[in-house]
Amino acid sequence: MNILIIGGGGVVGQKLARRLAERGELRGQTISSMVLADIADPPQPEAPFPVASASCDISDAAAVAGLIDESTDVIYLLAAVVSAHAESDFDIGMRVNLHGVLNVLERCRALQSAPVLVFTSSLAVFGGDVPDPIEDWTIPNPQTSYGAQKAIGELLVNDYSRRGFIDGRAFRLPTISVRPGKPNLAASSFMSSIIREPLNGQEAVCPVDLDFPHYYLSPRRCVENLILGAEIDGDAMGSSRSMMMPGRTWTIGQMIDAMTAVAGPDPAKLIRFEEQPEINAIVKGWKYDLNPAKALSLGLKADDSFEDNVRYYIKDDLPGA
Amino acid sequence: MNILIIGGGGVVGQKLARRLAERGELRGQTISSMVLADIADPPQPEAPFPVASASCDISDAAAVAGLIDESTDVIYLLAAVVSAHAESDFDIGMRVNLHGVLNVLERCRALQSAPVLVFTSSLAVFGGDVPDPIEDWTIPNPQTSYGAQKAIGELLVNDYSRRGFIDGRAFRLPTISVRPGKPNLAASSFMSSIIREPLNGQEAVCPVDLDFPHYYLSPRRCVENLILGAEIDGDAMGSSRSMMMPGRTWTIGQMIDAMTAVAGPDPAKLIRFEEQPEINAIVKGWKYDLNPAKALSLGLKADDSFEDNVRYYIKDDLPGA
Repeated sequence: MNILIIGGGGVVGQKLARRLAERGELRGQTISSMVLADIADPPQPEAPFPVASASCDISDAAAVAGLIDESTDVIYLLAAVVSAHAESDFDIGMRVNLHGVLNVLERCRALQSAPVLVFTSSLAVFGGDVPDPIEDWTIPNPQTSYGAQKAIGELLVNDYSRRGFIDGRAFRLPTISVRPGKPNLAASSFMSSIIREPLNGQEAVCPVDLDFPHYYLSPRRCVENLILGAEIDGDAMGSSRSMMMPGRTWTIGQMIDAMTAVAGPDPAKLIRFEEQPEINAIVKGWKYDLNPAKALSLGLKADDSFEDNVRYYIKDDLPGA
Repeated sequence: MNILIIGGGGVVGQKLARRLAERGELRGQTISSMVLADIADPPQPEAPFPVASASCDISDAAAVAGLIDESTDVIYLLAAVVSAHAESDFDIGMRVNLHGVLNVLERCRALQSAPVLVFTSSLAVFGGDVPDPIEDWTIPNPQTSYGAQKAIGELLVNDYSRRGFIDGRAFRLPTISVRPGKPNLAASSFMSSIIREPLNGQEAVCPVDLDFPHYYLSPRRCVENLILGAEIDGDAMGSSRSMMMPGRTWTIGQMIDAMTAVAGPDPAKLIRFEEQPEINAIVKGWKYDLNPAKALSLGLKADDSFEDNVRYYIKDDLPGA
């Protein structure tokens, strides 16, 4: 079992690599090697099998060809130019999120093997005037270039799977919280930082009201779902290889209450509420009423409580913990 | 008003060109020129304005750049590698239906102007396990490469429109019947030939039962819808520029009865029923229960009766009529 993680340097890619190293097996087979590829050489976890890292820009077809060969059994395609970046720089979004994905798929098509390919799409494929709740048969109607590029990736993964070039599966990830690391330029950045920074003893700004609802998944649960996502039987997915990854809808108030239940009353005092109209304008268009029936029926899971998300952050990621 | 019809040599492209020549105006403006582009130089209709033809393979970006400039006001993008061809030859489908569409869109993006672009998608974007009826918010879940490529085209037209690179609109065409010309390799070929050949005094084979239902539109009504499709206000389309073009569901029995009502009892005697399992396997997966509410609300129309479709064929296309 040879595994390739494209986007292996990111938050999810690194956690996935560490978890696979712990498990030592995937799809019932002992892992013999793992390659982590990213724009810059990713750090390599300790593992009972050889781990290599590679720097690769997936918009370069020749570089992609060097990553994937007949011995590659499972590919995680996590690499993407994120939402705000693909919106501010249309070219780079198209280059990586569309042509880069095509390069990976075309490389797989050129092989005799049909590797398992796990593609991370996003709930950003949904938007605009569609009825609630979002069901498995709701149209992806993206309102960002990132969402459009991810929806195109899903269609490609489906068609390349139907034709037997890959054994693909695409999961639309909820917003990951509590995401470790630093705040970034994503409009969703505050959805982790209002928990993460206070737990780290730092101030955080919340630009929306306490009753703002959104759909979340912990990084730990996301990784478990990505592992199961590689293991489920392709035929069990029916006429589409794309599905929502289950999450849970929480309000800001519920998230803060969960942090207080786990870590006491002090962290919440570090949150300052300061409305930011430009952030509100973006995040209030996001869908939060979703019914991921298909993924649940295949065994993928949401978090049990947001308290768990807080506990996972403290255990897995709190600096110095 | 300068118009470009890419795919101007096809059945719909030729009828559209002739109708625009008759009208002499589009979007309230006098037409000053029209270019018909296709793989081979298309025939040019008589018109009160200059008409040029051009041979162009849209998978060649330089050739596309030669077709479109700042003076191009309206582009009809009808060219495509059809369903059976895109299924038997994956490369040519991707090259024309995906990269060719991208070439047209990228050329528009490079301009200062944002031309109106009317893209013909197909009801073949729908398929698989989705509930009936198909609504405007039903997921395109294509089960052919052609359908996948058309669904990708829709997403691109939407995003390029949202960003102001074009003023796009995408219409998912029903099966066109009665289509003039010769039978072809499409699985839907019999849906026109069982009417066309008997009206021409020739035998036709019907591979499905009398009660087989499908969703149809006459070429004449399709052209009227494509003209209105260029004229409707982009903002009126809301959060998606893609919609079903209205059609009507008829059974084979209803279609034959309509032919008999219009042309007497003799043509129907020329139809031979001969089950073809491989055709059945394809067409029985096609959706026929559709609710094109959005297009209807914008003024697009279906045919009033299949008798009209038969009359249009006799008037517009019957050889020697």
